[in-house]
Amino acid sequence: MEEKLLTEAVPISDYRIDDSFWKQKIDMIHDTAIPYQWNVLNDRIKDAAPSHCIENFRIAAGLSKGEFQGRVFQDSDAYKWLETVGYILKRYQDPELMKTADGLIDLIVSAQQPDGYLDTYYIINGLDKRFTNVANNHELYCAGHMIEAAVAYYQGTGKRRLLDAAIRLAGCIDGRFGAEPGKLHAYPGHEILEMALVRLYHVTGEERFLNLAEYFINERGRSPLYFEEEQRKYGYPFFWKDSYFQYQYYQAGKPVREQLAAEGHAVRAVYLYSGMAAVAREKRDAGLHQACVRLMDDIVDRQMYITGAIGQAEYGESFTFDYDLPNDTIYGETCAAIGLVFFARRMLEIAPSRKYADVIERVIYNGSISGMSAEGTRFFYVNPLEVDPEACVKDEGKRHVKPERQKWFSCACCPPNLARLIASISSYASTRNDRQLFLHQYFGGTLRTGFGNSSLQIKSGFPWDGKVAVTVSGETKSYELVLRVPGWCTGYTLKINGEEADVPEREGYLSISRSWAEGDRIDLDFDMPVLVNYAHPSVREDVGKIAVSRGPVVYCLEEADNGKNLHRVFLNPGAEFAARQDDLLGGCVTLESDVSVLKDDGWGGSLYRADARPEFEARRAKWIPYYLWANRGVGEMLVWVHDGSFLKGNL
Amino acid sequence: MEEKLLTEAVPISDYRIDDSFWKQKIDMIHDTAIPYQWNVLNDRIKDAAPSHCIENFRIAAGLSKGEFQGRVFQDSDAYKWLETVGYILKRYQDPELMKTADGLIDLIVSAQQPDGYLDTYYIINGLDKRFTNVANNHELYCAGHMIEAAVAYYQGTGKRRLLDAAIRLAGCIDGRFGAEPGKLHAYPGHEILEMALVRLYHVTGEERFLNLAEYFINERGRSPLYFEEEQRKYGYPFFWKDSYFQYQYYQAGKPVREQLAAEGHAVRAVYLYSGMAAVAREKRDAGLHQACVRLMDDIVDRQMYITGAIGQAEYGESFTFDYDLPNDTIYGETCAAIGLVFFARRMLEIAPSRKYADVIERVIYNGSISGMSAEGTRFFYVNPLEVDPEACVKDEGKRHVKPERQKWFSCACCPPNLARLIASISSYASTRNDRQLFLHQYFGGTLRTGFGNSSLQIKSGFPWDGKVAVTVSGETKSYELVLRVPGWCTGYTLKINGEEADVPEREGYLSISRSWAEGDRIDLDFDMPVLVNYAHPSVREDVGKIAVSRGPVVYCLEEADNGKNLHRVFLNPGAEFAARQDDLLGGCVTLESDVSVLKDDGWGGSLYRADARPEFEARRAKWIPYYLWANRGVGEMLVWVHDGSFLKGNL
Repeated sequence: MEEKLLTEAVPISDYRIDDSFWKQKIDMIHDTAIPYQWNVLNDRIKDAAPSHCIENFRIAAGLSKGEFQGRVFQDSDAYKWLETVGYILKRYQDPELMKTADGLIDLIVSAQQPDGYLDTYYIINGLDKRFTNVANNHELYCAGHMIEAAVAYYQGTGKRRLLDAAIRLAGCIDGRFGAEPGKLHAYPGHEILEMALVRLYHVTGEERFLNLAEYFINERGRSPLYFEEEQRKYGYPFFWKDSYFQYQYYQAGKPVREQLAAEGHAVRAVYLYSGMAAVAREKRDAGLHQACVRLMDDIVDRQMYITGAIGQAEYGESFTFDYDLPNDTIYGETCAAIGLVFFARRMLEIAPSRKYADVIERVIYNGSISGMSAEGTRFFYVNPLEVDPEACVKDEGKRHVKPERQKWFSCACCPPNLARLIASISSYASTRNDRQLFLHQYFGGTLRTGFGNSSLQIKSGFPWDGKVAVTVSGETKSYELVLRVPGWCTGYTLKINGEEADVPEREGYLSISRSWAEGDRIDLDFDMPVLVNYAHPSVREDVGKIAVSRGPVVYCLEEADNGKNLHRVFLNPGAEFAARQDDLLGGCVTLESDVSVLKDDGWGGSLYRADARPEFEARRAKWIPYYLWANRGVGEMLVWVHDGSFLKGNL
Repeated sequence: MEEKLLTEAVPISDYRIDDSFWKQKIDMIHDTAIPYQWNVLNDRIKDAAPSHCIENFRIAAGLSKGEFQGRVFQDSDAYKWLETVGYILKRYQDPELMKTADGLIDLIVSAQQPDGYLDTYYIINGLDKRFTNVANNHELYCAGHMIEAAVAYYQGTGKRRLLDAAIRLAGCIDGRFGAEPGKLHAYPGHEILEMALVRLYHVTGEERFLNLAEYFINERGRSPLYFEEEQRKYGYPFFWKDSYFQYQYYQAGKPVREQLAAEGHAVRAVYLYSGMAAVAREKRDAGLHQACVRLMDDIVDRQMYITGAIGQAEYGESFTFDYDLPNDTIYGETCAAIGLVFFARRMLEIAPSRKYADVIERVIYNGSISGMSAEGTRFFYVNPLEVDPEACVKDEGKRHVKPERQKWFSCACCPPNLARLIASISSYASTRNDRQLFLHQYFGGTLRTGFGNSSLQIKSGFPWDGKVAVTVSGETKSYELVLRVPGWCTGYTLKINGEEADVPEREGYLSISRSWAEGDRIDLDFDMPVLVNYAHPSVREDVGKIAVSRGPVVYCLEEADNGKNLHRVFLNPGAEFAARQDDLLGGCVTLESDVSVLKDDGWGGSLYRADARPEFEARRAKWIPYYLWANRGVGEMLVWVHDGSFLKGNL
């Protein structure tokens, strides 16, 4: 780990987005998602899966009578909502919203126990049982989300009430977990607390929080396995005893530094890896960093869908194995994609690498935002790349794949998680240290560089066009401005103050060192042709198929535009794509191309024929951005389409 | 239903097989499978799943102490074994085997209750509970297998002891089930009794058995649903309440004549349809026959794998929906394929149709015998068309697919079922009435025509070569000899007494009416080229792929011959196949062809690339008969291979 490569993410307070793509989405979070989700948490949405989340806090605080309801981690939905509000209140003046949030914080704090403990499930069901099922009962997961919310709310509003509660909660956990005799030599069953503690350390400067995160990471998977001992002690059954992944479900089957591939529950995995990267950075732990590099490579090079979705299997919501990427039985949980963004940004902060920035870009424009409808009130948990609605009903192996967005989920992790990602999206665009400012993503807006009071005005056509203009304002400052050339980019021009500049591209970045003065201007124009992508030959499901992308956006075919039987479509050899700005669903670029479609009208009734060759008919196909699928009713959808580049001479 | 089209199957007693293909298999059943399975039933095979089957009978008969063990339908394994022995004893002089079988029959009869009732589960666990869980507890299923065994044993040996017990058992059931007040208005949860009762009617001439079968079929699925009422009465949970198929799991969601597609548990379905066809024939019930035609068409035209396997889903061991034919998550239970043979023969007996004879041929050379190893002692329950051993471990959706044959199963329906099919295989070759003798399949052997004492000596190269010679012996008789031209046949020659004959082919059959005299000879030579098969364009999984067959045999690629990564293989455009007789696994014809294999050596580490096109290398592939796969260790296997016919000009 090289000290000079370290950077830190530019916080959202320093990057105000005002471009059409992300501003629209952030506005939607403020205008629609936050009020909608607040209503859900308070059980006011008809026909949606009940939440009971706020009511659990009321019962825990003694303000209401009743039983705990919902998942054991139901508290986390409130924390994710508060975290989102924290980000949003940095941007919007909304006293009403702040009042609601402050009220929730009061409620949360009144539920907190004198020793700092906070988890409504155990407060309601018996505090004597707390920390007796660390593997499965999510107290530490809820604590992690509580801390993330507290940090965000403090940073967004300056208010410390929730932060102080978080410090007390973290202190309570620190008193109970650790290497010292008498403490539990345990670690979270569902990770997130590790990275949350590093955030808390950043805000408070208290090393004990960083050390606790490090302890959790180093203790994890050490023999004897805590989770195995816990089961034995309390007589719990092992839910995953018939699985192949066993304790790797929790990434706890072996020490984290010995884990060579991403395994087990995908959200847990990437949350852990995010914590590992955060701790590795703070502790300058090169060995831990190397483990992170290896795990990231395994995901990105061998287990990630082209949309950035991860977690191939519904069983255990888990990774399966390298190059196994089924498009129709995929899990691809929205939260897992989001967690991959967390992980990638922390890796970027250790050392800039286009690979990690490309991952963030892939996820944020595709397999994460696909989890929310265009209007922000319908959601996907699972993000498939191929959908046949009939199969989603009649094939048990695909019943987890929904062809229609849902109002809410009994396990409602994804919708508020996506809300907090979008509300904080600017924090994934730029990193800096005392010499350098990196622009990894091109969001339009105003970025305070951190070098004196200088700022950058960024105009960006992303993701629909590759033109970016960066204008300097404020005091003159010398630093290195480092601009990412996206991995998909086939060519670009760079102008500095109107003149074409010949800046060497190094590992995907253009670095410009100078004294930046008011009015300096950089123009980037990244070519954004439509690309026809192939998957690695080891990806069984995608052999003979292609996926279409343009810039960072992956495209799909939908039944709404192209009729049924999308599996019969072959992209024509050397097909030309016409790209056009389209009003569709809030505006996007759609594509058209010639395709050849397998005919069945001359086939007859036989299921198999040796005496007939496939016949095709020429058609025009319309491709829409993948993330916009399922906004126009139930129908088929397909990302990987048959490659007709071999059809030449056969049409 | 046309009276003049009715035929009946030539019984095994009239068709003695002596060709190399089937004789070898029947010998294997006698020499290996029967002793092996007898040892299993008596729990003498180390490391095999325990059976306890014979011990249950001993306990029920009061000869031993202990509890019932095994599945609720464990008795049926003994019956299937006895049925197989019945067929085998018609062919082999084996006094030792007969003695063992007679001993088992004595045991069974001594377990039978005075009123004819027989089911060791309820005899051991309480007779007061009998017929209280008709939907799920398989008493009527076991009774069906008992009757099938009794008929076969009687026909094979002339001994009536088991047959008389079967008559008593059927009488007991007839006394308890039926339309009359006080009887249960119920029907079997797992069908088979329907077709067994028709066999018992054939042997005994007692119409009450036929009528009971008809009652079961007509009552099935009528409202109110008996199975629903039974659940309500006894407070049972409905195991399939979350399924989409609901009571159609048992084919009991609506009256059988209203069932338009094959649905639910595949074995149950085809056993029911076999019973429906048998009853339709005996009762001249045209409406019921039409339902059978429709169901058979749905299976054969829309839900059957090219190997003859049926039942796409592990969940419910069920059919899914039309054109849904996943090759890797398939269930394709050996028993289901066998049941399809039962159904098809009963349809042939109503009216000859090449379609049904083609189905029988497809199943018996492919997706049924794939369920037993070359040496007859290892078995498959599930018969996939695509196997990646790593996925069978790491993908929960494929864990039911085994890459390695098993010694036995806790649910052991398949091995003895396959034994009884093979032991009685000659009964699926030929049907006749008082004017006609049909040869649907070409097994070498001696066939007593039923016309006086005349016989046919049949020499056949099937399935490896298409030459068939039929020589007449015995007294001169006039009848119509009707010869099937297999559906895969692209051309043939027919000679009568050495001279090429021009007999018009009608609906796949060649009909020759004459006075057949000693020494008359027919020579058939069916072309048997290698065929490259395509699936219907609606079969999503097979678009862009081909399957190779030669004559009735479907071929596959195996890792043992072709290395790993079979999904990267593309069959070359217009590839020539070299077919040769091979010593492999008891002898077969193997194929070789040129293929192009996707290379990965120039690909690099990226999972997705838009800047590289797939590259291929030329290789030679070896294809083996599908049914012989998994006899040479664990490895990949593939039937549907990428179609390289579009590759022309791209290599």
